[in-house]
Amino acid sequence: MKVTIIGVGLIGGSMALKLKEKGLADYVYGVDFSENHLQQAKTLGIIDEISTLENAVESSDLVILAIPVDATRKLLPNVLDLVTEKQTVMDVGSTKSGIVNAVKNHPNRKRFVAFHPMWGTENSGPEAAKKDSFSERAGVICDKENSAEEALKLVEKVAENLEMNLLYMDAESHDIHTAYISHISHITSYALANTVLEKEREEDTIFQLASSGFSSTVRLAKSHPEMWVPIFKQNKENVLDVLNEHITQLRKFKSALEKDNYEYLEELIRNANKIRGILR
Amino acid sequence: MKVTIIGVGLIGGSMALKLKEKGLADYVYGVDFSENHLQQAKTLGIIDEISTLENAVESSDLVILAIPVDATRKLLPNVLDLVTEKQTVMDVGSTKSGIVNAVKNHPNRKRFVAFHPMWGTENSGPEAAKKDSFSERAGVICDKENSAEEALKLVEKVAENLEMNLLYMDAESHDIHTAYISHISHITSYALANTVLEKEREEDTIFQLASSGFSSTVRLAKSHPEMWVPIFKQNKENVLDVLNEHITQLRKFKSALEKDNYEYLEELIRNANKIRGILR
Repeated sequence: MKVTIIGVGLIGGSMALKLKEKGLADYVYGVDFSENHLQQAKTLGIIDEISTLENAVESSDLVILAIPVDATRKLLPNVLDLVTEKQTVMDVGSTKSGIVNAVKNHPNRKRFVAFHPMWGTENSGPEAAKKDSFSERAGVICDKENSAEEALKLVEKVAENLEMNLLYMDAESHDIHTAYISHISHITSYALANTVLEKEREEDTIFQLASSGFSSTVRLAKSHPEMWVPIFKQNKENVLDVLNEHITQLRKFKSALEKDNYEYLEELIRNANKIRGILR
Repeated sequence: MKVTIIGVGLIGGSMALKLKEKGLADYVYGVDFSENHLQQAKTLGIIDEISTLENAVESSDLVILAIPVDATRKLLPNVLDLVTEKQTVMDVGSTKSGIVNAVKNHPNRKRFVAFHPMWGTENSGPEAAKKDSFSERAGVICDKENSAEEALKLVEKVAENLEMNLLYMDAESHDIHTAYISHISHITSYALANTVLEKEREEDTIFQLASSGFSSTVRLAKSHPEMWVPIFKQNKENVLDVLNEHITQLRKFKSALEKDNYEYLEELIRNANKIRGILR
């Protein structure tokens, strides 16, 4: 199968590597704004050929958009304009409603499958790509009833080859859940980094003292705005809803401390501990 | 050297295992309220003998208090009552001012070295102990001028055998820095867990969707209140100071989103990204 990867970065690159290893992709076209990323992707064996969008799409069985969600929203209708009944288009975006709405009336809507692999790191670019990144992670297909059956089957096959656990939900539910499970984590991590940078003027001390706990909560704060501003923008209402709840929860800790109410503090912590039963 | 470990849990247990492996400790007495933990620690080879406090302290060259900071504060004066000029006492608590103040006028104050190994996990108990836990982590000695020279030397030797990077600071600075670097991370993680548990009623969905990012920011929320309530209590003023700043920082994200000010949102994220240069 011939595959086009639009956006040869962390996600697109990792997918290409795995699909090639599994033999599902035998030729990969790379399309990207960054000449530098394209050259790196070629050198790293992620792609076989640097191509224009039109040539790549025309020659491929599967087109994967792996670019920021605002860019996907703009580019997806153009890609669907170029495909025939024999081709399939998928994305990998962290928000889904905006993207499916952008093509809901497109005549080729059925060739598109909305997909979200629940994996990422704070790094980006083709050099960060790793073929086994998606293994055992959740892969969400949204609004599957709006995709053609064989397009859906192909994307399911892609997810299986990536060794992901498949889930199905509608785009709106997806965006609500990811606001809780993923987007708010990034905001708290950014805000935590800004808190420490604001209060702790001794950078050497941060570096020397930083415990594994701090590193893990602040790791996501390294993630780039090019990816995350569009996600927050497209999922604004859900993110604000969860962010308000999060500030309310933090205020409870503040109030417990201010009032020396350590029984309440313990109650808050015991409630949080329930996450132990839910998360591995 | 004979060593007493008071509190044979994650930290005390991990230290005992490493000091035995290195040959610095050739006999370890275990003291704990939990008969169950003592038996586990014996079975796991963490301790050689289950003992009473008095017998263990009397027979040891080094006594390590590895219990919650409120318990350390209460028990430390009693332990110092029992030691001679030839013995050394150290603690491992995450707050320091309360502990050093509790013994500042004790006649045996110089036998005590205030120590904080900057490592922990969300797990607890002897079965969570691992001998290589402390390697390459920061180990902080506080108020070293208040300890006898040979007591200080022994604790430095312990830290070297644990393969930690030693730092020195006064207890008050320590408590300010750890509020930023460690304590606030736990509060944000607890609050994040409570946010998700409040908003996301579908536990299965959390479990299925939880990405690595979510897991790493919420991991600390599994930490037990027995350890953390006393830390927050003893470091109340510093923690409140950082918590207020953190809520202010979160409100900036909220405001940027509410006002659709995506340039400001990008600026906030770019600022947070600076943590990349400071943390590995």
